[in-house]
Amino acid sequence: MSRACLDGNEAVARVAYRLNEVMAIYPITPATPMGEWADSWAAAGRPNLWGTVPTVVEMQSEAGVAGVVHGALQAGALSTTFTASQGLLLMIPNLYKIAGELTATVIHVASRALATGALSIFGDHSDVMASRGSGCALLCSASVQEAGDFAAIASLATLRSRLPFLHFFDGFRTSHEIQAIELIADDDLRALIPESLLEAHRRRGLSPDQPVVRGTSQNPDVAFQAREAVNGFYAAAPELVQQAMDAFAALTGRSYHLFDYHGDPAAERVVVLMGSGCETAHEAVDALCAAGERVGVLKVRLFRPFSAERLVAALPASVRAIAVLDRCKEPGSGGEPLYLDVVNAVQEAWADRTAATATAAPPRLIGGRFGLASKEFTPAMAKAVLDELRQAKPRNHFTVGINDDLSHSSLAIDESFCTEPDDAFRAIVYGLGSDGTVGANKNAICIIGESTAHADGTPHGDGNAHGEGSAQHAQGYFVYDSKKSGSVTVSHLRFGPRPIRSTYQVQRAHLVACHQWDFIGRFDLLEAALPGGTLLLNSPWEATEIWERLPEAMRQQIGAKQLRVFAINASALARELGLGGRINTIMQTCFFSLAAVLPLEQALTAIRSAIRHSYANKGERVVALNLQAVDAALARLAPVTAGPVTAGPIAADPVAADGTAAGVPDPLATAPAFVRQVIAPQLARQGDRLPVSALPVDGTFPCGTARWEKRNIAAAIPVWDPEVCVQCGKCVMVCPHAVIRA
Amino acid sequence: MSRACLDGNEAVARVAYRLNEVMAIYPITPATPMGEWADSWAAAGRPNLWGTVPTVVEMQSEAGVAGVVHGALQAGALSTTFTASQGLLLMIPNLYKIAGELTATVIHVASRALATGALSIFGDHSDVMASRGSGCALLCSASVQEAGDFAAIASLATLRSRLPFLHFFDGFRTSHEIQAIELIADDDLRALIPESLLEAHRRRGLSPDQPVVRGTSQNPDVAFQAREAVNGFYAAAPELVQQAMDAFAALTGRSYHLFDYHGDPAAERVVVLMGSGCETAHEAVDALCAAGERVGVLKVRLFRPFSAERLVAALPASVRAIAVLDRCKEPGSGGEPLYLDVVNAVQEAWADRTAATATAAPPRLIGGRFGLASKEFTPAMAKAVLDELRQAKPRNHFTVGINDDLSHSSLAIDESFCTEPDDAFRAIVYGLGSDGTVGANKNAICIIGESTAHADGTPHGDGNAHGEGSAQHAQGYFVYDSKKSGSVTVSHLRFGPRPIRSTYQVQRAHLVACHQWDFIGRFDLLEAALPGGTLLLNSPWEATEIWERLPEAMRQQIGAKQLRVFAINASALARELGLGGRINTIMQTCFFSLAAVLPLEQALTAIRSAIRHSYANKGERVVALNLQAVDAALARLAPVTAGPVTAGPIAADPVAADGTAAGVPDPLATAPAFVRQVIAPQLARQGDRLPVSALPVDGTFPCGTARWEKRNIAAAIPVWDPEVCVQCGKCVMVCPHAVIRA
Repeated sequence: MSRACLDGNEAVARVAYRLNEVMAIYPITPATPMGEWADSWAAAGRPNLWGTVPTVVEMQSEAGVAGVVHGALQAGALSTTFTASQGLLLMIPNLYKIAGELTATVIHVASRALATGALSIFGDHSDVMASRGSGCALLCSASVQEAGDFAAIASLATLRSRLPFLHFFDGFRTSHEIQAIELIADDDLRALIPESLLEAHRRRGLSPDQPVVRGTSQNPDVAFQAREAVNGFYAAAPELVQQAMDAFAALTGRSYHLFDYHGDPAAERVVVLMGSGCETAHEAVDALCAAGERVGVLKVRLFRPFSAERLVAALPASVRAIAVLDRCKEPGSGGEPLYLDVVNAVQEAWADRTAATATAAPPRLIGGRFGLASKEFTPAMAKAVLDELRQAKPRNHFTVGINDDLSHSSLAIDESFCTEPDDAFRAIVYGLGSDGTVGANKNAICIIGESTAHADGTPHGDGNAHGEGSAQHAQGYFVYDSKKSGSVTVSHLRFGPRPIRSTYQVQRAHLVACHQWDFIGRFDLLEAALPGGTLLLNSPWEATEIWERLPEAMRQQIGAKQLRVFAINASALARELGLGGRINTIMQTCFFSLAAVLPLEQALTAIRSAIRHSYANKGERVVALNLQAVDAALARLAPVTAGPVTAGPIAADPVAADGTAAGVPDPLATAPAFVRQVIAPQLARQGDRLPVSALPVDGTFPCGTARWEKRNIAAAIPVWDPEVCVQCGKCVMVCPHAVIRA
Repeated sequence: MSRACLDGNEAVARVAYRLNEVMAIYPITPATPMGEWADSWAAAGRPNLWGTVPTVVEMQSEAGVAGVVHGALQAGALSTTFTASQGLLLMIPNLYKIAGELTATVIHVASRALATGALSIFGDHSDVMASRGSGCALLCSASVQEAGDFAAIASLATLRSRLPFLHFFDGFRTSHEIQAIELIADDDLRALIPESLLEAHRRRGLSPDQPVVRGTSQNPDVAFQAREAVNGFYAAAPELVQQAMDAFAALTGRSYHLFDYHGDPAAERVVVLMGSGCETAHEAVDALCAAGERVGVLKVRLFRPFSAERLVAALPASVRAIAVLDRCKEPGSGGEPLYLDVVNAVQEAWADRTAATATAAPPRLIGGRFGLASKEFTPAMAKAVLDELRQAKPRNHFTVGINDDLSHSSLAIDESFCTEPDDAFRAIVYGLGSDGTVGANKNAICIIGESTAHADGTPHGDGNAHGEGSAQHAQGYFVYDSKKSGSVTVSHLRFGPRPIRSTYQVQRAHLVACHQWDFIGRFDLLEAALPGGTLLLNSPWEATEIWERLPEAMRQQIGAKQLRVFAINASALARELGLGGRINTIMQTCFFSLAAVLPLEQALTAIRSAIRHSYANKGERVVALNLQAVDAALARLAPVTAGPVTAGPIAADPVAADGTAAGVPDPLATAPAFVRQVIAPQLARQGDRLPVSALPVDGTFPCGTARWEKRNIAAAIPVWDPEVCVQCGKCVMVCPHAVIRA
C-alpha cells in the first residue's frame, strides 16, 4: 500500500481527478488548491482512470461553474467541482435541480464560514448547512485520510443512489493539514466503481438518439406528487452509502460507518459531532475513558440523508445525556441543524418504544456551537462539553471555545487538560507568509512521513481512518493569517509512532523555531514550549550577542523552562551562498539537527535526496548550492549561552513593542481605546482571549486602525542612490512598502 | 376605516411603497406585481409616507437586486425588494451579510416552490426555508389582510430589532387572492413608525462625515466571538415583534401574536402550521369543535427568531398530540423545518419541567408535508391530520393532499367533510387566459366588497385578521395554468356576511359559468355545482340549440342536480356592439343577473359606475359601448330548456373529446401509454388524482406530448384570401396558431 504526505485538498483532488471527465472550477479559499491540482494535471496531460484527460474549465464565477457541471452531467459526463463558502451559495439554485433530477455527482467542499458581519476565509460548516435543503447527500470527512477515502466512497455511492453528494471537510483544518496517509491505488478505484454504474449514468444523459424532456414546468395538480416520487431514493441511500463504505473497506482495509461510535461501550455521556473535531473528541474520550469516565463520541459521517434509526442504533444503550456540537450558527433558529436532527431522532425512537421494553426516560439532550471560522477545538473543550452533561440541568445552546460574557453561553474550560502523548515530538515554527517556512516544514513532514514505511505492511482496519502500525506518523498544520503574504504564519508539526488525531494546534512543543527576528518580543513565542525544550532562532546577530537582545520576559521564560537556545544567521548565510532570500534549506537542516525525530545521518540523506528531487528542474547549480547550504547550516548553527535573568515574576512585554529593548515606550499608549482593547490583542496573537463583548455586534469597525500595526517585516530598507538614478520613476511604483516617494 | 378589494401583492405593495425610499426589483412569478405596482406608482410620481418619490430600479437579476438593496441600506436609505423562489436564492449571499450587519429591511416574498425535477411557479415555502440559515427574521402572513398588516408590522419590528425581515405569504394563494380588506391609513403608518427609529437607521448608514469600516475580514481568533455578539438582538426580537403587533393593534384594532392559537381551550389534538393553510385549518377546527372534538390550530407567524417558549406557552396545556405541517420538502432531512423546531421546543420544555409540576409524558409529535406547489389544502385534509392524531401510533413524516402509492406516506381524506357555510354565495367561472374573465371577476368582487360598507363601523379586534361585521365579505381566487395566456383559468368566487377563511377552491358552487364553449365536454365543469344551482354558458349557439349540443354526461348532471341553465352569445354580441373580443362587461352583467348576491338594481348601478371609472381614460365612446353592453346582455340572456336525459348512471366522457358530440372516437386511443396515463388526466383537469407512482422520479418526460393536447381555442379560423394577398409573407409569422403556412 502506497503512502504519501498530502494535505486534504490534494488527497481529494487525486481521487476526484481520476474519477471525472469534466471539472469546472473557480477559485475560493480554502478549496482553490483542489481546482489548481486538477488544472495542472490536465495541462500536463495526465489521464483519468479510464484513460482520457479530463476537461478542466475555469468559469467567471461559481454560478457558471454550477451550470457547467449541471450541463455536463445532463450530457452523461462524470463531472465535479471544488468550492466553499459563498461559492457554494452561488450553486444552490443548480443544486436543487441537480438533486431533483437525481443526477450523480460528487462536489467537494472545503467547508468555510459564510460572510456575515465580517468575512472569514476559515473553516466551519455554515456553507454546507446553507445548502442542506437542496436534496444533496452530505458526507463529512474528519481527517486528511478520510477526505481522500470519502471522495472515493462518495463517488460509488452517488452512482449507486443517484443522489448528488456534497463531500465536505473542514476548511484549513483538513484541507490544509498535511498527514502521511495511505493512498488509493488506481486498481482499487477501478475495482470500487463498477463499469455498469458508469454506463447507467451515461444512459441517463440527454442524447439525440433517445430524446427525452427535462426541466418541465408543473402545475399544482402534479408537482407535489412528483416531488414525493423521489422518496425511495432517499430512503435507500443510507444503506447504499454503507455498502460503498464496506466495498471500500474490503479493498483498502479502512472501514467506516454512517455513524462511528468510539468510547466506553457502556457510556452514559456522549458527544455527537461532524468534521475534524471528531478526531479531537476521539482523543479526549480516550483520555477520559482511561481515567474511568463512561463517555463516548459519535462521529457523524452521513448527515444527509439523515438516518435517525442508524444514529440511535449507533448510540450505546446506556447513554443518559447527549451533547450535539454544530460547527455553524443559524441565528434565530430553534437550534443548530445537527442538534435538531439528533433531538428528533431520539424523540422519534423513544416515542416508538413501547412500554413493553420498559425503557426509561429519553436521554437528556443539549446542543452547542464550536469551532466557528476555524476557532480552535481542543480536548479540553471536548471535556468541558462532556463535563456539562453531568449537570442535572446542563446548559443548552451553549458555546465552547470562547468567553461569551454577553449571553453567557460559553462553557468553562479546564486548560490544564492536555492529551498530547509523551511519545510524540512536537514543534512550532514561526515564519513570515511567503518566506519559505511553510514549504520547508511541509518538506520536513514528507521526509519523515514518507521515509518511514509501515514495518508490518498489513492493512489497518481499526474501524477508523488511521492505520495503527509502527510507522512514523506525521502531521503539519499551518496557521495562516488572512492578510496572507507578509503576515505571521505558524507551523504546527507533530511526529510520532501512533496515528495523530490532534486536530488542534500544538499545545506543548519540544521545539520552537522563529524564522524572523522581528517577532521577538512582539508576541509570546514560548508559551507552548515544554520545559527542557529547544528554541531555534534565525537571527541577524551573532549567537554571543543574542541574549542581551532578548526581551526580559523571554529571558525569564527561557530560564524558567530551562530551554536550550540555538541560533543561526540564515539570511546572511543564504546571501553568502547565492541563495538570495531562500532560507528554507538552511532552517530545515537546523530543525533536523535539533529535533532528533530521525537519526541525523538518515535525516541528512533524506534532505539531500529531497533537494535533488525538488531542484532538479532548476539546474545543477541550484542543487549544488542547496547541498552546500546543508553542510554550512550544520557548521554555523550555534548554541546561545544564557546570561543573567532578573528574578521575580515574568515581566509582561508591551503588546506591540519593537523588540529591540525592554522599557521602550508603548507605541499604543496614545491609540484610541478600541485599538488598545480590540486591535492590539489581535496583533499580539491574543485575539482568542477577547470576550464576545469586545467585538462589534454588526461588524462595524473604526477607521484608521492599520496605522497602529507596525509590522516591521522588511529585512532590508531601500535607499535612493542619486549616483545611478535615471529618474525613470518606477521605484515609486514597485516599492512594496511605499517607502520611496517621488 | 377604509376598505378595498385587493390581492395580497397589492396589499403588501401599498404598505411597502409608502415605507421605502429605494426599491430594486426583478420580476419573478408570483411576486412580480408588487414590483410592478411600485414601479408604476413611482413613475406616476406618487410620494412615500415622508413626501419623497421612491427610486425604483430594475436590475439584471435578483443578485443585482440584493446588491442594490444592501448598498442602499448601508447608505442609510429605507430599501426593499419583492421576490420569490430562485430569485430569493440568488439573494442568499447578501442576506447573510445584511443580517450579519444588523441592517433593518423588510423583503417581501410571495413564497414559491423551487425548481427541482421540474419547475413550478406555484406556492410553497421552499424558498424562504432555503434562506432560513441567513439570520433574517421570517414573518409569515396567512391571508390578504394579514399580508398588508404584517408588511407594516415587520417594518416597525425591523427598525426596532435591527434584524432584516423576510415577510412571506403563500404565492398565488395569498399573493393573487382578492379579498375585501381594511386598509392602513397613512396616519396610522406614520403613528406606527417613530421618527426616532428612522433617524437611528440613517445614523447607522455609511457616511463620509462619520466614517467607519464594514465588511472586514476576521481571523479565527475573533470571528467566533463576533458571530456570538449578535445573540442579544435575536433574543430580544420576539418581544419586539410582539410589541410591534400590539402597537399595530392599538391603531387598527387588528391584533396578532407570534403564535395564535384557535380552537378548544382544552384541546387534546393540535395542528401547527404557517401561511394560508392556517385559514383553512381554522375553518376546519371550528367545524370539528362544533361537533364536539377537542382540537385546535396553532398559527405560526414568527418563524425566525423562533421562540420555543412562546410556542409552548401558546399551546393548550391539555394537548396530548401535535401534528406539524410544513409547506416544503427537504429530501433526506430528519424532518421538515417547522416540525424539527416544534419537536425541539416541546423536548426542551418538557426536559426543563421538574418532577414538582407532576407533568405527564410530552405530547406525541408528528410532522407532515402539505400544499407543495399550491396543491390544494382543504378542511378535509386538516381533519385528516387531526384524525391521525387519534391513533396510538400516528404516521409520522406523512403527506396530505395526494395519493402516495409509493412510500405510502399519504393520509386518507374524507372528501365528504365540507365546511363551506350555507350563508355564503359561491361561484366558479371557467375562462381562457387573457379573455377578460379574470378581470371581470375581479371587478365583480370589488363591486360587492367595496359597495357594502361595515354597518357598525367599529374596528374589529377578534384576535385574528378579519373584522366580524355585517359587511359583505368577498374573495376571489384564480387558478392559473403555467401555460398562461390561452390556457384554462378558473375563477373561484365567494361572497358572504362573514369573514371568508376558505383558502381553497370552491367545492360547492351556487353558480358555474363557462365563458368558452370549447371547454364543454373536455372536462367536468359541473363537479362542484350545487343541486338547484345555476349554469351560465357563453355559447356560439342559440339557447334553443344548446341542449342537443351538450355531451350526454353533462345533460345527466344537469338533470340530476336540477340546474338552471342560461346562455348568451357574448362573443357575437360584443362584436355587434363594436367591443371586439371583449366579453367581460357582458358576462359580468349576466353573472350579477343570475347570482343574486346583490339586488339587481344595486348591482347594475355599481357595474355602470365601475364602467365609467374603468374606461374614463379610453373616451366617451368606449364608456357608452360598455353601458350599452349592460342593457344588451340583460336582454339577450336566455334560459336553456332542458331536453330529455338518458336514464342510468352518468356516462364518462372521453378525457380529451372535442365536445361536439358524444360517441366520437377517443383521439388519444393511439397515444403512448404515458400520454394516456399521465398527460391525459392533466388535460382533463384530473391531474390531482394522479398517484405519486405516475410521475417520473427525476423529471424526465417523453418528447412529443404536446401533439396530443388539442386545445381548439380559436373562435375564428384565419383563411387565406388570394384576392387581397400581396404575398408579403407576414401572415406566416404573425398567425398565433401557426395555421397559415408559406
